[in-house]
Amino acid sequence: MTRPELNRDTRLCISLAARPSNHGTRFHNWLYEQLGLDFVYKAMTTNDIEGSIAGVRALGIRGCSVSMPWKEAVIPLVDELTPSAAAIQSVNTIVNDVVDGRNVLTAYNTDYLAIEQLIAAHGLSRDDRVLLRGSGGMARAVASAFRDAGFEGTIAARNPLAGQGLAAELDWEWAESPDGLGAPIIVNVTPIGMAGGPDAEALAFSEEQVAAASVVFDVVALPVETPLIRAGRSAGAHVVTGGEVIALQAAAQFELYTGVTPTPEQIEQAEEYASRP
Amino acid sequence: MTRPELNRDTRLCISLAARPSNHGTRFHNWLYEQLGLDFVYKAMTTNDIEGSIAGVRALGIRGCSVSMPWKEAVIPLVDELTPSAAAIQSVNTIVNDVVDGRNVLTAYNTDYLAIEQLIAAHGLSRDDRVLLRGSGGMARAVASAFRDAGFEGTIAARNPLAGQGLAAELDWEWAESPDGLGAPIIVNVTPIGMAGGPDAEALAFSEEQVAAASVVFDVVALPVETPLIRAGRSAGAHVVTGGEVIALQAAAQFELYTGVTPTPEQIEQAEEYASRP
Repeated sequence: MTRPELNRDTRLCISLAARPSNHGTRFHNWLYEQLGLDFVYKAMTTNDIEGSIAGVRALGIRGCSVSMPWKEAVIPLVDELTPSAAAIQSVNTIVNDVVDGRNVLTAYNTDYLAIEQLIAAHGLSRDDRVLLRGSGGMARAVASAFRDAGFEGTIAARNPLAGQGLAAELDWEWAESPDGLGAPIIVNVTPIGMAGGPDAEALAFSEEQVAAASVVFDVVALPVETPLIRAGRSAGAHVVTGGEVIALQAAAQFELYTGVTPTPEQIEQAEEYASRP
Repeated sequence: MTRPELNRDTRLCISLAARPSNHGTRFHNWLYEQLGLDFVYKAMTTNDIEGSIAGVRALGIRGCSVSMPWKEAVIPLVDELTPSAAAIQSVNTIVNDVVDGRNVLTAYNTDYLAIEQLIAAHGLSRDDRVLLRGSGGMARAVASAFRDAGFEGTIAARNPLAGQGLAAELDWEWAESPDGLGAPIIVNVTPIGMAGGPDAEALAFSEEQVAAASVVFDVVALPVETPLIRAGRSAGAHVVTGGEVIALQAAAQFELYTGVTPTPEQIEQAEEYASRP
């Protein structure tokens, strides 16, 4: 990929992470080129989040993606928390607008927005109970979007502090393990089934749980066809993949920064390009 | 011009100005491509210099060029003032190094450095007196470099506050007008002779002053062949052009940011590319 030259009016978007990957830089720049947008995207790292957000504001950086470990720390540094970020007190996207000559920073959580959209797009019914494995930041985004859409369920998580805490926040139930439980909607938000991880070949739910579910949702995106997704397809369940989550959240972020909505095909191609080794 | 794609390790350099031109962005990016350097350069504008420098530091932005009106305001915001910037209390270049895990900002004035180099390269003699027109920031850089190299002279400037102030600082003489004065080295640091300006066709010094001088130095770079430079050549004087100043200061800045010294031909080509309409 090559890019046209920059000029003084080119808009800059960045990401802030402790250990940035190349994914965002490749994904966004690829789409800018395809869509002929005068933007440039660059992953950055920092150990000073206050100075970084001051810089985003003062330098007129148009958008800033926020990753671990800064998703909560940026909350007091922005001007407006939209409902998606307020609902889970976690920010992954900041947009910088000039309002009356002043830079105004608005924070979103596009993971939450993506789950909200997927629940609607797949026609999931809130009459169906959710059994969700995981208790980290992404589990909170996913479970909160389900809860806010009217679903009830159970958080299965070994860590009692995080697991019980999240369940209490949601007013859901908590279990130390999913063993022996079952629900029409089963959702994995742990690294189980992730390529390269210690549990790459493992199933996040048992064969029986998969067979009993009508919806199998795996947030793991690498590979898109996780063991759980394969098992769900074999059992004839409705599946929702981590690839859909990533694509929707990235599209939401892209749209917030540029005002342009890429087509699903463009998102897929950008994702394909960005994920190449 | 196209460049290979950005990645997470690409180093970012920026400029800060009230009204940025496209020159720096084109000049630096052109050289990065020619020299195969994984850098990207972007002109920026701000109304918050403290937040901007905090951002340069926190985001690990490698280099920051500083233009009007921030050249003095950044002084308390950096960690180290090198002699070139300290001499004239004016910064046009900030370099961000990681030292013991901490971002350290070092400030330079490459205009001063360029004049210092030109005095040496052209073999100008400090036995020759300098008559310099102008009293702005660039006049201060030029006159200070001459003074620090051991030259004596006169500042000719209509504005008594700036003119007398600068002359007093240098321990030079001051005159409201260059009329009737003369010196072996005459230097123009006003916009007289600048293309597109109100005095584009005017001569900064009289024909008699040019004829009596051995060195004619015009800091105006657009066009490189100003009326004064043409008159100097006709009179058989040794001429020093604004094009040389720009090229040397830009090369110094480029080298401070990247550690790579472009050849004079590469600088000339980059300058030619950057100045294209």
